[in-house]
Amino acid sequence: MVEPATDTIAATKLVPLLKDELDIVIPTIRNLDFLEMWRPFFEPYHLIIVQDGDPSKIIKVPDGFDYELYNRNDINRILGPKASCISFKDSACRCFGYMVSKKKYIFTIDDDCFVAKDPSGKAINALEQHIKNILSPSTPFFFNTLYDPYREGADFVRGYPFSLREGARTAVSHGLWLNIPDYDAPTQLVKPLERNTRYVDAVLTIPKGTLFPMCGMNLCFDRDLIGPAMYFGLMGDGQPIGRYDDMWAGWCTKVICDHLGLGVKTGLPYIYHSKASNPFVNLKKEYKGIFWQEEIIPFFQAATLPKDCTSVQKCYIELSKQVKEKLGKVDPYFDKLADAMVTWIEAWDELNPAGAPAKVSNGKA
Amino acid sequence: MVEPATDTIAATKLVPLLKDELDIVIPTIRNLDFLEMWRPFFEPYHLIIVQDGDPSKIIKVPDGFDYELYNRNDINRILGPKASCISFKDSACRCFGYMVSKKKYIFTIDDDCFVAKDPSGKAINALEQHIKNILSPSTPFFFNTLYDPYREGADFVRGYPFSLREGARTAVSHGLWLNIPDYDAPTQLVKPLERNTRYVDAVLTIPKGTLFPMCGMNLCFDRDLIGPAMYFGLMGDGQPIGRYDDMWAGWCTKVICDHLGLGVKTGLPYIYHSKASNPFVNLKKEYKGIFWQEEIIPFFQAATLPKDCTSVQKCYIELSKQVKEKLGKVDPYFDKLADAMVTWIEAWDELNPAGAPAKVSNGKA
Repeated sequence: MVEPATDTIAATKLVPLLKDELDIVIPTIRNLDFLEMWRPFFEPYHLIIVQDGDPSKIIKVPDGFDYELYNRNDINRILGPKASCISFKDSACRCFGYMVSKKKYIFTIDDDCFVAKDPSGKAINALEQHIKNILSPSTPFFFNTLYDPYREGADFVRGYPFSLREGARTAVSHGLWLNIPDYDAPTQLVKPLERNTRYVDAVLTIPKGTLFPMCGMNLCFDRDLIGPAMYFGLMGDGQPIGRYDDMWAGWCTKVICDHLGLGVKTGLPYIYHSKASNPFVNLKKEYKGIFWQEEIIPFFQAATLPKDCTSVQKCYIELSKQVKEKLGKVDPYFDKLADAMVTWIEAWDELNPAGAPAKVSNGKA
Repeated sequence: MVEPATDTIAATKLVPLLKDELDIVIPTIRNLDFLEMWRPFFEPYHLIIVQDGDPSKIIKVPDGFDYELYNRNDINRILGPKASCISFKDSACRCFGYMVSKKKYIFTIDDDCFVAKDPSGKAINALEQHIKNILSPSTPFFFNTLYDPYREGADFVRGYPFSLREGARTAVSHGLWLNIPDYDAPTQLVKPLERNTRYVDAVLTIPKGTLFPMCGMNLCFDRDLIGPAMYFGLMGDGQPIGRYDDMWAGWCTKVICDHLGLGVKTGLPYIYHSKASNPFVNLKKEYKGIFWQEEIIPFFQAATLPKDCTSVQKCYIELSKQVKEKLGKVDPYFDKLADAMVTWIEAWDELNPAGAPAKVSNGKA
């Protein structure tokens, strides 16, 4: 049986890497007591809290954390009519935090994720591992059988082309979960007691041309390299679907990373996922996605972007056109989503004008 | 520091899976004392020993093992002029063993590979893990972030298309190495003391469209599904290159598996690789390969096979034509290799006529 770490204070002395270059984005509807456990690891960093649901509710944040908090009223005020692209009553709202951040890196985590322990019993500083992942290159063009060749004690194996050993810049670091695995509703229903107890001590690059199911629970990315592709779509209130926000972002992001020659890593770090969400509620949110994904994934597998798409924004707008053209036939929802993708980029560019970072204030930070 | 297991006898009671359906192929130039350590795991199986070098030398095999042994004279006698496709003075000669086997599965291992221990100190039955890998499906069409979804305690994660959950048949299981990693000569020279001590508790499918450096030290495959692609090329005596035998087989095999919808897995099991080969000798063998691979890998990455290539043999012959056409320009060696690929298939089909397995005897088994 795996258990979360309880003694995070005693964890190794911290060197808060990238302290002024990384924001932690947390979507929530409740008081952020879970931060107590993360205090030794997160306290040096700035938090962006995106409050979902009723804006009149007061979210308590433990003392000592540096944060800004946005509720729905803030989002509406800052984005005006473009706020329509930000989901409501769904953790997809977190992507608003990516947009208002002015930092180079984003780490996002769910409020039911606790500190996991490695096999020696030591509390895992997930953020530190993400930073290691994102600051070292990826190897998307050829597979290395000893996993991450840049890690201490590892290297490229015999037969790995020398011309590819510089690797590619890493845009995304996708972390995993001990205890409650990230299963869909049907699998949750079939295996209610399954827990992930296997600690796989590896980080690997997802090869170019291969899609993967990106989970938003424990995720880090380089905003400068890929930020505008990290749109979590239209989910929750008023939408026919939920729980596909991170998947959508993952598919779009991977296609664009492949096009731009950027790397996506998965594996370490683990967080401890404490609580399985209700599988019946999940099934209701997911069921359209379960059959839509059978058409969405082949669409993304076949998607190619023209050479003149040299920025993430250009790639994303092009992808939105292809979504409208190809997936619009699957359901009118994708027409609406394609429009929201364009709105998202417009809003992103408004808040992040090239060369002169916009100053955003909600009066609460 | 990792050490090999010493107490293999005490390892769990064995169920010799696939006892009558799997041959163990071992290329060697020396007495096979290393088998003592593997006795509890290998003794139930039939061994095919391919003796390299001087055929007059007597290779001692520990008592109690069921084996057949082929030296160069046997190879010449059995294959006649087609014996030219089998390398001499190079472990590439092992592929002769694949050809004369009449079993469905092959496990091949080097004679400097010992039994490794898992993190709990238990001796690892590498063959048993390979059999598990090869008897369960692969997932080449979409990446599963929790690694092998068929393993106990694991499954497909949220967002994995249900239509792909049956997976593909597994053709190859590629195992790894603790202690001496499989590095090329330049890396050996630069990092003479590096040892692989990291036990990564994972098996994963190498995605469709992704090439990998296949090492022949600890390898299992389904002869019926992919056997004729497991040609280890022209290496060693009279050839300008060595140590690319398994790489060549891996590139060809992966392209053909991708075309035929078959899966290739890598990860567990580990063996304990005892002795680093001489990096100076290796550099001499490898140096042409080191620059040739810069052209070979893009060639294989771009290679496509026509739809009418519905058998491994047809795929392999087609690939030999493409090798001649595209790589012949790199060096005349590839012309010769392309011809040897054809000879290999002719010899394979001669020894393995469809429907009626050939009876091969060397009078020593």
